[in-house]
Formats: sequence, C-alpha cells, structure tokens
Amino acid sequence: MDTATDRHDLEVLSLQECLSLLGSRPLGRLAYVDRGSPSIVPVNHIVDGRTIVFRALHGAKTDALIMGRPVAFEVDDHDPARAVGWSVLVRGRAEPVDDEEARRFAAELDSWAATTAMRHVIVRIHPEEITGRRLRRS
Amino acid sequence: MDTATDRHDLEVLSLQECLSLLGSRPLGRLAYVDRGSPSIVPVNHIVDGRTIVFRALHGAKTDALIMGRPVAFEVDDHDPARAVGWSVLVRGRAEPVDDEEARRFAAELDSWAATTAMRHVIVRIHPEEITGRRLRRS
Repeated sequence: MDTATDRHDLEVLSLQECLSLLGSRPLGRLAYVDRGSPSIVPVNHIVDGRTIVFRALHGAKTDALIMGRPVAFEVDDHDPARAVGWSVLVRGRAEPVDDEEARRFAAELDSWAATTAMRHVIVRIHPEEITGRRLRRS
Repeated sequence: MDTATDRHDLEVLSLQECLSLLGSRPLGRLAYVDRGSPSIVPVNHIVDGRTIVFRALHGAKTDALIMGRPVAFEVDDHDPARAVGWSVLVRGRAEPVDDEEARRFAAELDSWAATTAMRHVIVRIHPEEITGRRLRRS
C-alpha cells in the first residue's frame, strides 16, 4: 500500500488511523497557554466521534486557561529499541460538556489523578486539526 | 518519610526527583505556542545539569516558534492497572546550543524522527520552573 510521507520521511497517518490510535491509549497530554507560555498536563481521555473528551481536575485555573481556549492534545507510543513509534496531535478548542453528557462520560473516564472526592470537570475538544505521523526507521 | 501533597492529594516531587525522573526516559513532549495556540511534539532529550537538551528537526518553523520563546517539556509514566504514575513538567525558554556543545550532544541524542541525512538543531531549555507530581492511589 502506498503511504504518504512528510518532508522528514515520516509516514502521514489518515484521519481514521489517527482516531483509532487516539482511542488506543487511556492517557494523553493536554497543552494549554498560560499568559503566553505553554504548559502540559497528563489527562485520561476517550474518543467520542471526532472529538476528545477528558476529565480535568476542577479549579478556577483550569476553567480560565482551558475553557473556550485553544488547546492541543497528544498521544504517542515509541519503542526506542526497535526505533518505531507514532504520534497523533489534536488541535482545537476546549468546551465543557453539558450535564447529561457529563454523567454519561463520568463512568467511562478514569482520571489519572482521581482520588476519592475530588471535583472534576469534563471537557470536550472540538478539533480544528487532527494529524499523525509514524516513524519506521529503515 | 514525610512527603508533601498538593491540593489534589498528589505527592509533590523534589527537584532532585524531578531531574532524576526526567533523565529516566529517552522521550518527552515539547509544547510551544503557534499564533496563540499550543502545539505538542515528541522529542528525544537528555538532562544536562538542570537543563533539558533535545534535538529538533531543523526548519524555519521550529526556529521561529521555539528559539528564544517560552516552551514546556513534559515526561511521564503511568500504569493504569496499578493506578500509579508520575509526571514532571519543565517550563522555560528554549535557546540553541553553540557549535561545540552541538557536537558533544549530537552523539548522545537520538532523535525520535532521525533518519538519514536530516538536518537537526540542538536546543536547550533553560528552566524557570521544574515541578513534578506522583500519584499513588489509595
């Protein structure tokens, strides 16, 4: 099968491959911008259609920095010994889900940092861009 | 031993633990800001003193978006089955290394996306903040 490669000789993944890989791992990394500087936090996620849903710890900071703002979400896997790996990047805008969806997703989402009685907020990323690359070293 | 926890009951890691964990994995994720929106790319890295050195694919975009600009770098590890994990975040400014350092680091750095004759640039993050958290679910 022919596969597209980018200018760095990485295989360009299709949207379907990207969505499949995004759903193949329970945890990804969310990046957001805090006063012009980026920050990264690991989050548990699920793929819902073409969107990403994750549970974040509730707090004024999360709300202010993520909700309605541009975010990036990345999932990857690498095997240094075999020099193979892939990475999928989602860029889009984060929005809270409504209460009904929140109840539906709460059971599916197991927050990385979930302990007993912590308050969470469930967030959906509406992607503007989903891209993926796979490395197969020759 | 007493350990500090944050408001989410995550164990707060010391700087020495953070540096040790940062160096324990060959690959982390770099976040940068592109016209106000964050983006994430996986990079191979090493720890040099209290700085992070990584090799990025060379290109005008990388230079413009990373060099001299605020970036974030994150390394993590998680075991969903045991519900344990840790995450270390470095926030700081990215600067190119000089030619002598570039030669020194080139041998140590194995770029995730390194194939044959690609041009690379070696970048150092001068941290303004290094923080880490460990989850031990009770």
